[in-house]
Amino acid sequence: MLTERAAALDAADPLAHIRDRFLLPDGVVYLDGNSLGALPAAVPAVVEDAVHRQWGTDLIRSWNGNGWWEAPLRTGDTLGRLIGAAPGQTVVGDSTSVQLFNTLLAAARMRPGARLLLTDPDHFPTDQYIADSVGRLLGLDVRRVPAREAAAVLAAEAGNVAVAAYAPVDYRTGELYDMAALTAAAHAAGALMHWDLCHAAGSLPVELDAIEADFAVGCGYKYLSGGPGAPAFAYVARRHQAGFDHPLTGWHGHTEPFAMSGTYAPGDGISRARISTPPLLSMLALEAALTAFDGVEMTAVRAKNLSLTGFFQDCADTLLDGLGFTMATPRDPERRGSQVALRHAEAYPLVAALTARGVIGDMRAPDLLRFGFNALYVTHADVLHAVQELHAVVTGGAHLAPAFQQRPTVT
Amino acid sequence: MLTERAAALDAADPLAHIRDRFLLPDGVVYLDGNSLGALPAAVPAVVEDAVHRQWGTDLIRSWNGNGWWEAPLRTGDTLGRLIGAAPGQTVVGDSTSVQLFNTLLAAARMRPGARLLLTDPDHFPTDQYIADSVGRLLGLDVRRVPAREAAAVLAAEAGNVAVAAYAPVDYRTGELYDMAALTAAAHAAGALMHWDLCHAAGSLPVELDAIEADFAVGCGYKYLSGGPGAPAFAYVARRHQAGFDHPLTGWHGHTEPFAMSGTYAPGDGISRARISTPPLLSMLALEAALTAFDGVEMTAVRAKNLSLTGFFQDCADTLLDGLGFTMATPRDPERRGSQVALRHAEAYPLVAALTARGVIGDMRAPDLLRFGFNALYVTHADVLHAVQELHAVVTGGAHLAPAFQQRPTVT
Repeated sequence: MLTERAAALDAADPLAHIRDRFLLPDGVVYLDGNSLGALPAAVPAVVEDAVHRQWGTDLIRSWNGNGWWEAPLRTGDTLGRLIGAAPGQTVVGDSTSVQLFNTLLAAARMRPGARLLLTDPDHFPTDQYIADSVGRLLGLDVRRVPAREAAAVLAAEAGNVAVAAYAPVDYRTGELYDMAALTAAAHAAGALMHWDLCHAAGSLPVELDAIEADFAVGCGYKYLSGGPGAPAFAYVARRHQAGFDHPLTGWHGHTEPFAMSGTYAPGDGISRARISTPPLLSMLALEAALTAFDGVEMTAVRAKNLSLTGFFQDCADTLLDGLGFTMATPRDPERRGSQVALRHAEAYPLVAALTARGVIGDMRAPDLLRFGFNALYVTHADVLHAVQELHAVVTGGAHLAPAFQQRPTVT
Repeated sequence: MLTERAAALDAADPLAHIRDRFLLPDGVVYLDGNSLGALPAAVPAVVEDAVHRQWGTDLIRSWNGNGWWEAPLRTGDTLGRLIGAAPGQTVVGDSTSVQLFNTLLAAARMRPGARLLLTDPDHFPTDQYIADSVGRLLGLDVRRVPAREAAAVLAAEAGNVAVAAYAPVDYRTGELYDMAALTAAAHAAGALMHWDLCHAAGSLPVELDAIEADFAVGCGYKYLSGGPGAPAFAYVARRHQAGFDHPLTGWHGHTEPFAMSGTYAPGDGISRARISTPPLLSMLALEAALTAFDGVEMTAVRAKNLSLTGFFQDCADTLLDGLGFTMATPRDPERRGSQVALRHAEAYPLVAALTARGVIGDMRAPDLLRFGFNALYVTHADVLHAVQELHAVVTGGAHLAPAFQQRPTVT
């Protein structure tokens, strides 16, 4: 019955043909694209050209001749379409941590009277650490308020909050929050809204311009499939660009970078959010990867992701009942991102045993099994297979083998 | 006569065979390795493997299985050998600007009583901008003092200077400063010494440990030939690691990164200087590039670079006399890095015309022609050819063509 349902859903999938834009290994069901996206088919040739022709042959001339100088803003605009950002507001480069620091500190400087910085106690660790770092440098108190309580705290602290820094999707449970509502609540309280889109960009129809978000950052290697450690992006709403006063004043953000002036004078528009020389092999891989989204509407991606995650939940209800799992991800589609997390006391060995059988998810301590679904290359048949394999592991006890009990450095 | 001398010098060159470790384009004399190093022959296969097998096939499993997690410290130790840093003090990742900000701010925090930050008015622009940014965040005054006057100012301001931030090589003129003497002067004044090694790493026998430098940063894409925008590196002397209190507190620097704690607790040793996920394609390219230095002593690199730069100066004396050039680079080998800069009123069109003839250098506004010499792949015959071509251009007037008069975005 589940087999027929998977087949029917896949047969009716309007994005089914997009899977051919990825090079997926044989014998693997890949449900960890929320950590590292799969390899887009367009990437290898672009990277080879970047190495051999652009670097090896054209050498320094590539800055002009092969458009290296324009890459951060060019790729930013391409990526901007996927997050609802009109051109000229998105720059690509550096890591998410660095972009987060740079934009969060600049945002806080725009509210000099306010003394509070709000962030989520369930936010990804770096986001919390960087908020603390910015708070310490600027003398702001950092208060950790869960996303669902943030609107009330903003109302109570109206005028006191400089920035509210949140993520639309909880990186562990996949719970989805209402970006428009929280942005409006921040603005009503006189605060600026800062979004971390790591788990949203490429998986949801984020609408930064429409909801009047102020700042956003995100990474290039999850649902955007830009490759390991792909550069991050930063969004600075056009209305804030002239006042964008950031700490990472590298020469690429200067208004006349090649004048080699000893005094920083920020460039116009989003160009001032450039920092310095980006890692071009990784940058050009990301740019090539984004072509996998050509002609794909984010509403279609969202519809399929909801279908995949909903189907996973249904399969789990049927196949994993009574086996020690609980569902950590909301069942309400309105409150669900593009991943499903299950809690189980044996989370690590279960994920390890599953990986050995070719079904790749990941885990987050202490007890979460995470499965991410990228609509561009995951099928409903993959979903069913993954849950069937998990059922087989947990009922057969494969995870009890010593090889799966020892947690390595990175999981 | 110059031809014979070039041939004799090349015939006696103990590093001549290292040139085979690079893929140099036909018909090009490349004297811009101080801006973007040439492509090492070891790189393409490593990048192809990183894309196809590590990313495409092994996917997320590469963090453990292919050593991605260890790459920043592993590559740091390899690079450390070239800058006189014993293992466990160098980390690779992010850009020079970012590493500069992170280490300079951390250094300044170690001298809470001091109110001054010294840097060079001739320092690369980013270094000056970042010093200003750090000064503003911590309430320090930034004073620009030329390298040759820094020791005297340090002595006069003993106790008041938190950090002295300098480069051993002037990025425009190639002038070399005495790292040991300035480091000692900083320490005598109670200050910490911060070095930017962008134009030194891979071209000089830098001895960070021996001179007791405190902090250093540098880029991977100049003399280290790590590729366009290759990750930078940061050196934190072992004695400062326990007190290294940096602003870019990404999760990779946490003592237990996978515990996903909401509070930052820095890791042991150099691991705390990790920031976050590095751009792995660019990182692995850099790691492969560093194998070009296998078995090569930096003293031999230095000897050859001095021979190349000295021969360039001799050729220029003979061939460019009376043609409007002046020598901007010291003739004293003790005061010369691995580049030669000539001043000429027509610097931009001359460099453009030279490039069109296959001799690639670069220029820095307003009037500097820069030629960088990487001992691993430049020959004395290249040097002579470059000066002969420059003579031909300037005497023949090729640079007066309209095509060479319009300066593009990036030069």
